[in-house]
Amino acid sequence: MNVLIVYAHPEPSSLNGALKDFSVKRLEAAGHAVRVSDLYAMQWKAVVDPNDSSEHVPGTPFNVSAESARALRNGTQSEDIAAEQEKLKWADAVIFQFPLWWFSMPAIMKGWVDRVYAYGFAYGVGEHSDKRWGDRYGEGSLAGKRAMLIVTTGGWEPHYSARGINGPIDDLLFPIQHGMLFYPGFDVLPPFLVYRTGRMDEAKFSQACDALGRRLDELWSTRPIPYRRQNAGDYDIPECTLKDDVAPGATGFGAHVAR
Amino acid sequence: MNVLIVYAHPEPSSLNGALKDFSVKRLEAAGHAVRVSDLYAMQWKAVVDPNDSSEHVPGTPFNVSAESARALRNGTQSEDIAAEQEKLKWADAVIFQFPLWWFSMPAIMKGWVDRVYAYGFAYGVGEHSDKRWGDRYGEGSLAGKRAMLIVTTGGWEPHYSARGINGPIDDLLFPIQHGMLFYPGFDVLPPFLVYRTGRMDEAKFSQACDALGRRLDELWSTRPIPYRRQNAGDYDIPECTLKDDVAPGATGFGAHVAR
Repeated sequence: MNVLIVYAHPEPSSLNGALKDFSVKRLEAAGHAVRVSDLYAMQWKAVVDPNDSSEHVPGTPFNVSAESARALRNGTQSEDIAAEQEKLKWADAVIFQFPLWWFSMPAIMKGWVDRVYAYGFAYGVGEHSDKRWGDRYGEGSLAGKRAMLIVTTGGWEPHYSARGINGPIDDLLFPIQHGMLFYPGFDVLPPFLVYRTGRMDEAKFSQACDALGRRLDELWSTRPIPYRRQNAGDYDIPECTLKDDVAPGATGFGAHVAR
Repeated sequence: MNVLIVYAHPEPSSLNGALKDFSVKRLEAAGHAVRVSDLYAMQWKAVVDPNDSSEHVPGTPFNVSAESARALRNGTQSEDIAAEQEKLKWADAVIFQFPLWWFSMPAIMKGWVDRVYAYGFAYGVGEHSDKRWGDRYGEGSLAGKRAMLIVTTGGWEPHYSARGINGPIDDLLFPIQHGMLFYPGFDVLPPFLVYRTGRMDEAKFSQACDALGRRLDELWSTRPIPYRRQNAGDYDIPECTLKDDVAPGATGFGAHVAR
């Protein structure tokens, strides 16, 4: 199978770098083809701007989604964007690896999402009408592919627990896992998390690699998070709210996971 | 009073640009001093890297938090970072305005947070021990200042409702409002939201300005979101979990708001 690792850390000799190298070796040893988008090494351009298409006319207003759609349609996207879209098409599974900075991904990876997720590629896909609100949340260009986060944080696991002050890690990652991965069609696997990175030693690193190795070995058999598909009957369209008889009374992120 | 607007949109003639211009005029007309960090106009560097300090020795490993702390302490931060920190110190209130891209802020604004929020300035502040886990979540360098988000989105309000498929907007914004604003000490006001931006016309724009104007007029009197302060007795330290008798049985983001 083909695995793409989208990786964001500025220091190759970091824990993140070591975990990324471990993943590449483990996956290749299992016979998979692996490609890595090392965003810092690529000096990935993080910021959406008119240079993302060769068609923008200087001095005219820049409409982000309209120009994104036109550039995708006409093949005038900048080369770095088109190359990442090709990698996504090639991949059977995509791993996004990053340190949790301010409860989200580093800016360089957010800029990968902002730029690679073109209109017509990751959003604005399919019919939008009173009866159907696009091919998204379980359908879309990336349907049939798997995605998984590998996330490191200096904080303690209890800080990210159900009653921890940072908020539960599953909820903090919902905008990414549900909003950026399930939205364009990925089946999203539970994340692989490493806490208290400041206290990492050889024994803990070895444990983390063992656990990560098992997750990589099970990449094709792990059950995805059972997010509800938008167009499979659970939601009223076009309001995109849960029907009254689906998880009655439940609200919040958890209501969109079929238990 | 002094108001800083941190603003991220690539097109001055956009709805976001018009709302930002409206805010500046309204606040100035009320006698406030206003400064704007227009991140696109400033060509803000979004990516944390070794160039953020003049002290980094090429060829040596780049440790993000350690170098951030040293650069702040020694006055060797890059000038753009130091200038934004000075603006934050100057401000009595800070408004963060951006379009919601992929359920979060545009990369350029995430890069403002990643870079300006130095170790010793926005995190790593105060004693960290078994008895006290830093001056954060209600305390810290920015305590006593107010912060408010102004967020636009193309989606419909029901999509962001309690049972909407995107997740409730308050929960989607929690990593920002609680994790990036309350964390370093801001009192966080309820956000000002504009939905369905693709259907904006003159009448709706006028309505949005009226509503925004009221929020700006009430910037100093609006009651902040009552997030629980870390060091005011609700949390066990150092686990940073809610004490058993605080909101018994409650989990998730909502448990950290004192109702």
